[in-house]
Amino acid sequence: MSIRVGVIGAGIMGADHATTLRRFVRGADVTAVADVDLARAEAAAAGARAYTDADALIADPAVDAVVIASHDSVHAAQVVASVRAGKPVLCEKPLAPSLAEATDVLAQIGTAGETLLSLGFMRRFDPGYVALRQAIDDQTVGAPVLVHNVSRGVSSGPGATSESSVTGSAIHEFDVVPWLLRAAVVEVSWTAPRCSSQVQGLQDPQLITLRTADGVLSTVETFLNARYGYDIRCEIVGETGAISLTEPARTRTDAALRQGISYAADWRPRFADAYRLELQAWVDSVRDGAPTPLATGRDGLAASRVAEAVIASMRADGRTTKVAQ
Amino acid sequence: MSIRVGVIGAGIMGADHATTLRRFVRGADVTAVADVDLARAEAAAAGARAYTDADALIADPAVDAVVIASHDSVHAAQVVASVRAGKPVLCEKPLAPSLAEATDVLAQIGTAGETLLSLGFMRRFDPGYVALRQAIDDQTVGAPVLVHNVSRGVSSGPGATSESSVTGSAIHEFDVVPWLLRAAVVEVSWTAPRCSSQVQGLQDPQLITLRTADGVLSTVETFLNARYGYDIRCEIVGETGAISLTEPARTRTDAALRQGISYAADWRPRFADAYRLELQAWVDSVRDGAPTPLATGRDGLAASRVAEAVIASMRADGRTTKVAQ
Amino acid sequence: MSIRVGVIGAGIMGADHATTLRRFVRGADVTAVADVDLARAEAAAAGARAYTDADALIADPAVDAVVIASHDSVHAAQVVASVRAGKPVLCEKPLAPSLAEATDVLAQIGTAGETLLSLGFMRRFDPGYVALRQAIDDQTVGAPVLVHNVSRGVSSGPGATSESSVTGSAIHEFDVVPWLLRAAVVEVSWTAPRCSSQVQGLQDPQLITLRTADGVLSTVETFLNARYGYDIRCEIVGETGAISLTEPARTRTDAALRQGISYAADWRPRFADAYRLELQAWVDSVRDGAPTPLATGRDGLAASRVAEAVIASMRADGRTTKVAQ
Amino acid sequence: MSIRVGVIGAGIMGADHATTLRRFVRGADVTAVADVDLARAEAAAAGARAYTDADALIADPAVDAVVIASHDSVHAAQVVASVRAGKPVLCEKPLAPSLAEATDVLAQIGTAGETLLSLGFMRRFDPGYVALRQAIDDQTVGAPVLVHNVSRGVSSGPGATSESSVTGSAIHEFDVVPWLLRAAVVEVSWTAPRCSSQVQGLQDPQLITLRTADGVLSTVETFLNARYGYDIRCEIVGETGAISLTEPARTRTDAALRQGISYAADWRPRFADAYRLELQAWVDSVRDGAPTPLATGRDGLAASRVAEAVIASMRADGRTTKVAQ
Repeated sequence: MSIRVGVIGAGIMGADHATTLRRFVRGADVTAVADVDLARAEAAAAGARAYTDADALIADPAVDAVVIASHDSVHAAQVVASVRAGKPVLCEKPLAPSLAEATDVLAQIGTAGETLLSLGFMRRFDPGYVALRQAIDDQTVGAPVLVHNVSRGVSSGPGATSESSVTGSAIHEFDVVPWLLRAAVVEVSWTAPRCSSQVQGLQDPQLITLRTADGVLSTVETFLNARYGYDIRCEIVGETGAISLTEPARTRTDAALRQGISYAADWRPRFADAYRLELQAWVDSVRDGAPTPLATGRDGLAASRVAEAVIASMRADGRTTKVAQ
Repeated sequence: MSIRVGVIGAGIMGADHATTLRRFVRGADVTAVADVDLARAEAAAAGARAYTDADALIADPAVDAVVIASHDSVHAAQVVASVRAGKPVLCEKPLAPSLAEATDVLAQIGTAGETLLSLGFMRRFDPGYVALRQAIDDQTVGAPVLVHNVSRGVSSGPGATSESSVTGSAIHEFDVVPWLLRAAVVEVSWTAPRCSSQVQGLQDPQLITLRTADGVLSTVETFLNARYGYDIRCEIVGETGAISLTEPARTRTDAALRQGISYAADWRPRFADAYRLELQAWVDSVRDGAPTPLATGRDGLAASRVAEAVIASMRADGRTTKVAQ
Repeated sequence: MSIRVGVIGAGIMGADHATTLRRFVRGADVTAVADVDLARAEAAAAGARAYTDADALIADPAVDAVVIASHDSVHAAQVVASVRAGKPVLCEKPLAPSLAEATDVLAQIGTAGETLLSLGFMRRFDPGYVALRQAIDDQTVGAPVLVHNVSRGVSSGPGATSESSVTGSAIHEFDVVPWLLRAAVVEVSWTAPRCSSQVQGLQDPQLITLRTADGVLSTVETFLNARYGYDIRCEIVGETGAISLTEPARTRTDAALRQGISYAADWRPRFADAYRLELQAWVDSVRDGAPTPLATGRDGLAASRVAEAVIASMRADGRTTKVAQ
Repeated sequence: MSIRVGVIGAGIMGADHATTLRRFVRGADVTAVADVDLARAEAAAAGARAYTDADALIADPAVDAVVIASHDSVHAAQVVASVRAGKPVLCEKPLAPSLAEATDVLAQIGTAGETLLSLGFMRRFDPGYVALRQAIDDQTVGAPVLVHNVSRGVSSGPGATSESSVTGSAIHEFDVVPWLLRAAVVEVSWTAPRCSSQVQGLQDPQLITLRTADGVLSTVETFLNARYGYDIRCEIVGETGAISLTEPARTRTDAALRQGISYAADWRPRFADAYRLELQAWVDSVRDGAPTPLATGRDGLAASRVAEAVIASMRADGRTTKVAQ
């Protein structure tokens, strides 16, 4: 009675999902993996079927549900194909590279198709963010007025641009901030200091502000090449207090005149729990035929609209820009 | 192909195990729960079979493997019965209330039976302790010389005694210290300050020292009624540095002139990850017919021998006492 | 051979300065205190002369040097009088309520008079800020790209306005940021979320960004009514790392399911060390006839120019605004 | 009207005291420094008189009060000489190398002479320890039951022995624990793990337990060669909570996949505030002719009695040993 999952994309993220599903997710089996590189697909498949053709995987009757962790540029087509095959699909963010394409995906799959679609905004399952949201609901620090987000990484991947920093990294905050506040982003602005001399080809860091419908102002610092570690922070400032994420290190070391904890070098160790819990929740909902507890296609569209407005602001010297609703 | 697990005992621990198995452990189904209180068994069974008779559960052909989380006094008999039924069994510590009884259990089940037995010293699966052990193996802080352990709780249960503080709580350190150091405890001593005025019927707190075969000295503070929270600490002091557990809080709050994190009120939230990972490792090993990666019966015996020596020291005014090997 | 100091203003700040001088500052005696309220002056004078007339204190031959901690509205006149009397003067910020008046003070005292004037931007003497500046100079985290400042208090005083939040509180950051970076603020912008419902009569919190001549972008959150405590943060984000102030608590408490440290209720305990070191440095420089190591009148003017630009931005819907140089 | 202070000993400690007195202590002037090495005395004197003969300094009419920071072996004679000259004297710990000699000093100076004597147990003036003591008095965490002390350094000086680790380092805890608890140490025991392989000529680390008259048990870990930094910890465990010192770092750094604070390499930066406040309190009491607020000769004798008992325990295989009262 296990859900038979096919994973498209056997890069870092797809291979990670396959491993997590196989080791830690109850009620799921990985029955197929597809990748343009067959050897990579086979390695991630670990004995299950390996495909180079995503459509063949989607069509495979031994696949009940699909996880898409392929290149961003093919997400849209694979989502549409999965939905047309009637299979629940968990698509890594983004749904599509641009807002127009994302909108088009939803149009193609229709309202019924949307019920089959989940998006991989995994922070919604991170125990820290979950605790922040609960604290807001519980009014632990009063009604929120400010949210400060910091997203720093060691280095950007090849081909990163100022725009992809927004659509690929800051988009996590564009999803998680309205999810935390239960309020849509209505207005944004973009600014930046001089670019780090360690970086070429994109503006890094960037500083974005988001205004949500509840009047809360959120700051988002995105610094892909912060060098020192993968460091994600979120602080909710309320009317009577503040609450923030801690760095989830399990040990502290005293050595060489320093006391300290370690940062992860990338996002996977930081969000391993989030990915596991997200996949478990998705598999459970597929099994039960229940509405997805993950981000929906509409959530993805909302985040893409924010990203589009931020890029518009970037191109207009930081002008405050409304988000299309 | 799932392992069909029967859980004996539907108190806090047993109910927790049933829930964890059902929600988060891959490859296992809870097919039966036994408890002297049928209603409690039924609640924990959540639709699976409920028994009042542990032997009936053990005999149930729909039970492949057994988790024992019943009263300490019946662990021994249930372990023997499970092993005689040829079923892998994960028994919560202690294996038996006394060293003599624990020794007797191992004698009864024999060497072959031992391969079916795992003990629930879950700290071995806590990510923090696992990281400490890795750090020792990696010589991150040089060869260990001291280990400081602190184990504090909010309040002791009914019927707690000075001895049960040792056999029920400090025994976790008696297992985890030699596991961390890969060296047996050879000598112990016991001492205590005045008893907390908040406590009656037992000496609380207690302070134990353990000497392991590698010459390392470990301190164990056990304070069941520390009131302020459930707080488990472990620091390894090596020749070039020190490494210690952090309190695994996911958020930090600023409120009412204080900045701080929260403690759990009891052990379950603190060790939820450890229990999940322990159950998963156990289920995986049962499925694979592999040797248990959990503590074995012999590990349990070793811990009980330390406990016995500590109690002997307690009764002899803190005299340094050898541990039978 | 001690410097005989007269303190004008015996409110919280003035009384604090008198006490610090008397108890902890070497080479200074408090010989006179002036306050419009004679009883208050006498209490702070602790046996020294008490005046209701600041000019009388300034004229007193037993006063070698003057500390001004009176109401902001009379700083300018008292500074001019002190300088005209040829006496070194340490004036609490602001030099004057407006940029125009501050400019006028400097014009009145002239270049020679300026050498007698020091301004009480005490953060320059806080060991934390001093360490941040040293770290920047040492390139500990690479060249700075961002500075994040947070300034939160428990509650604003009577008569606080949106503007006085800028000129009275954020002005500390307008001084300390260029001092840290050794670069002037050239451009600012202002924004804010909805106002906290706990506040009336002013916009609180506010969010200001400062661009310095080196291309670094600094954020300044000012939240006078954050309720939870007096909390000052500063983080320098460099090209290879980040460095930030710690909350200088000397103890940590475990109680009531919480682990934490305490915040001060106002600025004095937080900056007690800074005030002591500032007063000592001032007295030493007066004794030695050396240039002041404190902020100068020109530093004060620079900070006021930033404040003026921020208020202009506030009144222009957050428009990015150049700072007059 | 300043107190004219003569400093005996211009080594690290003496030079530090001279500098602190000259820069930060109100109401004192350093008028003379003595050292067996004249050049060193002159360097520390910074223009004041330099002596090679401590007795000459003591006899100098321009010296009102004496600070003794010379070699431990000459403390006793210099204290006696200072008291006989009728001059208040602040002697660095220990008063004398052995209990017998310390007892003899007090006998020689008599009850009247004792009023002139202060001992440099500076932790009593450390803001952290002061806050711990206040918390105990305020019952912030209930009545104490345990105190855990850790004292780690980078490396021991030349000539260090197992005994000098007790009389030179752990003696700070032998003074501060009864001062915190307001209860005398009545019984001690000593133990140790294997010696660190980085150390020769002494047992390091050592683990001492102290029982005070109030029934509280204190642990003292002394590890002179812990390598990683100078790290002083103290935790008071009470009946309802616990309170501990924080590491007083002013900044936190993120770099190279680590987040952390720095340790001092030795005791001076860690206790700079304590030394300053101690010297100020001593100078104030000398000026006022008031009883010393520092540790007295009798406090020193009490600490030496504890040290003697600890060494007796060390030599008797860790036997529990009563402290002579």
